[in-house]
Amino acid sequence: MKTIVTHIGMLATPLGRGPRRGRLQGQIQTLRDAWVLMEEGTVAQAGTGPAPGADQTIDARDRLVTPGLVDSHTHLIFGGWRQHELGMKLRGASYLDILAQGGGILSTVSATRAASQEELEDKAEKALDEMLSLGTTTCEAKSGYGLDVDTELKQLRAIRELDARHPMDLVPTFLGAHAIPAEHREDRAGYLRLLCQEAIPAVAAQGLARFCDVFCETGAFTAEESRIVLEAGKAHGLIPKIHADEIDPTGGSVLAGEVGAISAEHLIVCPPEGIASMARGGTVACLLPATSLYLGAPFAPARDMIGAGVPVALASDFNPGSCPCLDLQLVMTLGCLRYRLVPEEVLTAVTLNAAAAIGMAEQAGSLEPGKQADLVIWDAPDLDYLCYRMGSDLARTVIKKGRIVSSSD
Amino acid sequence: MKTIVTHIGMLATPLGRGPRRGRLQGQIQTLRDAWVLMEEGTVAQAGTGPAPGADQTIDARDRLVTPGLVDSHTHLIFGGWRQHELGMKLRGASYLDILAQGGGILSTVSATRAASQEELEDKAEKALDEMLSLGTTTCEAKSGYGLDVDTELKQLRAIRELDARHPMDLVPTFLGAHAIPAEHREDRAGYLRLLCQEAIPAVAAQGLARFCDVFCETGAFTAEESRIVLEAGKAHGLIPKIHADEIDPTGGSVLAGEVGAISAEHLIVCPPEGIASMARGGTVACLLPATSLYLGAPFAPARDMIGAGVPVALASDFNPGSCPCLDLQLVMTLGCLRYRLVPEEVLTAVTLNAAAAIGMAEQAGSLEPGKQADLVIWDAPDLDYLCYRMGSDLARTVIKKGRIVSSSD
Repeated sequence: MKTIVTHIGMLATPLGRGPRRGRLQGQIQTLRDAWVLMEEGTVAQAGTGPAPGADQTIDARDRLVTPGLVDSHTHLIFGGWRQHELGMKLRGASYLDILAQGGGILSTVSATRAASQEELEDKAEKALDEMLSLGTTTCEAKSGYGLDVDTELKQLRAIRELDARHPMDLVPTFLGAHAIPAEHREDRAGYLRLLCQEAIPAVAAQGLARFCDVFCETGAFTAEESRIVLEAGKAHGLIPKIHADEIDPTGGSVLAGEVGAISAEHLIVCPPEGIASMARGGTVACLLPATSLYLGAPFAPARDMIGAGVPVALASDFNPGSCPCLDLQLVMTLGCLRYRLVPEEVLTAVTLNAAAAIGMAEQAGSLEPGKQADLVIWDAPDLDYLCYRMGSDLARTVIKKGRIVSSSD
Repeated sequence: MKTIVTHIGMLATPLGRGPRRGRLQGQIQTLRDAWVLMEEGTVAQAGTGPAPGADQTIDARDRLVTPGLVDSHTHLIFGGWRQHELGMKLRGASYLDILAQGGGILSTVSATRAASQEELEDKAEKALDEMLSLGTTTCEAKSGYGLDVDTELKQLRAIRELDARHPMDLVPTFLGAHAIPAEHREDRAGYLRLLCQEAIPAVAAQGLARFCDVFCETGAFTAEESRIVLEAGKAHGLIPKIHADEIDPTGGSVLAGEVGAISAEHLIVCPPEGIASMARGGTVACLLPATSLYLGAPFAPARDMIGAGVPVALASDFNPGSCPCLDLQLVMTLGCLRYRLVPEEVLTAVTLNAAAAIGMAEQAGSLEPGKQADLVIWDAPDLDYLCYRMGSDLARTVIKKGRIVSSSD
C-alpha cells in the first residue's frame, strides 16, 4: 500500500539520523511544489515535480508539510490538576503557604498515588489526543509523581499501555528522583537506597523505561546525589537524563556531560562550564520556554548553546504545576521570540534534535527514506508563518506511520 | 422559543451595564450547579437548583460557562501577512532594513489598497470563524491600512458586511490616523486635513464607524495632532479612542482622559499622570499583552491602573505586524502571568470591561436578564482552570444570541 502526499507548497525538514549542531541546526531542506511517498508506514521517497503513482493520494493543497513534532520532555502521567495555585500565587501566597494548604508537587504525588492505573491512562489519553491534534506524533513521558516503587511502576505501566493503544509513540523515562517524598524527608539516604536498590532494578527488569532522569536542584537532589542515581541507572542499562540548572546552577549541566547524559533539561541558569561539558559529552540541551513563560522565569541561553555546538531541542514540559501547556506550536513561537532562534533552528529543535534527545533520531524527526512517515500538513504557506501565527492551531492533517490520525479541515 | 443551558458546573460572570473599577473588577458572580434560560436571543434568567422548562436543552455537563468573550481591539481587515519579518528580525535586520525590503506597516497598506473589498472580507471571515471557535462572540475592528479615503471606506464597508453576515458582532472603528502614508510624508498637515475634512465626514455620513482612533506615538502622530483628529471625530459623532504610550510616553493617556476617550490602548509606558487622567475621564484601559509578548516589550502597569480606579480590559490587538494572535484564551493566561491580575479580574477584563471599551456593555459582556445570550461552555471545571491551561483551546460550545454557532465536542 503506497500513499502519496501531493501538492505540498513547502516541504520543510531537517535531514539526518542524529542531532544537528551549531550552524547545521538551522540548515534544513525546503522543497517547493513537493510530494512525499509513503509505503508500509515509512517514507519511501520525497521529491519535487511530477509525482509517482500510489494507491492513495492526500492533497496538501499548497500547504506547508513538516515532520511530526517530537515532544522530548513531558510529565504526562499525573493525578489531579493544580489550577487553584495560580490564583493563590497572584494573591500573594508563598510556596510555603501553598504547601500548607495542600498544594505543590506533593499534592500531585498524593493524587497520583490515589489514582488507579486506568484512571491515569484515561486522563493522559485525553492529553495525548490533544497533543496529536496539535501536531505532536512522538513524545517522551516521565514517571516521578509516585516517589514510591509501586506508584512509579504504575505510572510507567500506564505509559506502556498508552504507547500500545494510542497512535502517539511514547518513550518512557523513570524520574523517581523528582523530589524527596514526605515519608523520607528525614532520611534522604534511605530514599536514594530505595531508588538505586529497589526502583531502578525493578524498572529495568520489567523493561519499563529507556531513560533515568533526576531533578538536580536546590531543594531536590544535589549533583552528587544525582550522580549516584544516574550511575545506578546506567548500571541497569538506563540512559541518563537530567533536570539541570533550572533555578540555581548546582552543577547539573556539568554532570550531564560527565555522565554522558543524552539530554539535559531546563538549563535556564546554565553556566559556561556547563555548556562546555554538554558539548564534550554530546548532550542535547532540552529547553522548555513555556515553563519560563508560565513561571515568569528567565529564558535559557539558547544562542550560546548553539554557538558552542550543543544541539538544542525545545519541548513542552507539560505538567500540572509549573507548565500546564502541551502545545508545541506555542513553544515554537516562543523559541523565536525568546530564544532568538530562527524558524529553521526551531524546526530542527522540535523534530530531529528532540528525537535525538529521546533516542528516536533513527526512526523519527525528519522526512527522508526509511524513517517513519510521521508528518503534519499545516494551514500555513511556509515555515515562517507557522512560527509567526502565535496562538492559532495550524495543524490540519496529522499522519502517523503513513496513516491519517487527526484531521480538522 | 426557550432554550436552557443546564448542569453548569460553574457559571462565572461579572454583573453590570458599565465597566467595573478597582476592587469591583474582581467581584464576579459564581454559581455552582447552575442554569441559564435564554429566550429570543437574550438571557431570560440565570439560577441554581431545579431548572425551569424550555423548548430546547443544552447540557453543559458540569463545565464552566462564562459570557462570550469580547475582543475590544483588533485590526481585523488587512491584505497580506508579514511572517517573513520574524526571521529577518531574528537575523538582525533593523526596522529600516525591513522597510527597505518592502516590509513594515506600509507593505500592509499596499496590500490592503490592492485587495478588493471581497478579498478583504474573505480573509477576515476566516479569522472571525477562528475567533468564534475560540470563544470570542463580539469584536471591535479597525480600519487603518488604507490611509486614503477610498481604502479606509473599503475596510469599513468590509466590516459592515461581515457584521451582517457573520455570527460575530463587529463594532467598527475608523483609524485613518494609523500612520502617515508615503505620499504625505512631506505634508503631514495635508494628511491631517484629508482625515478631518474628507475622511471623517465621509465615514460619519455613511454611518461606517462608531469610534475614531489615532496612533499617538513617536513616528506616528503627536498628542496635538491626535487631539485635532479626535476632536474632528467628535464633531461628527465619532467617539474617541487612542493608541497611547505604547513605546514612548508622548501624552496619549493624558489626552485620553481630557477628550473623554472611551478607551486608551497599549499603555505600556503610561505615566502616573496618564493613569490619573484616564480615571478622571472615565476611560477604559485596553491592554494588549500578546503584543508585549510578541514584541518582547514590557507589560503595561495593569495593577496600578486597577489600583487607581481605571477599568482594565484585555484584548488581542490582532494585526499582521506586531501581533498576529487572535486568541483571547492566551490573552487571559498572560493577564494572570504578566499583569498579575487574578482570574476574576481577567474574566471581567475580557467580557464586561471589554464590552464597555467598545460601547457594548448594555447588551454584552455579562450573563444577566436582558443581555444578549452570548456564552461559552468551556472544557474546564472552573475559571482558574481556564486561565491556567496555557496553550489549550478549551472552548467547546459557543452560543451567540441563543444559538449554537461553534461546537467542538
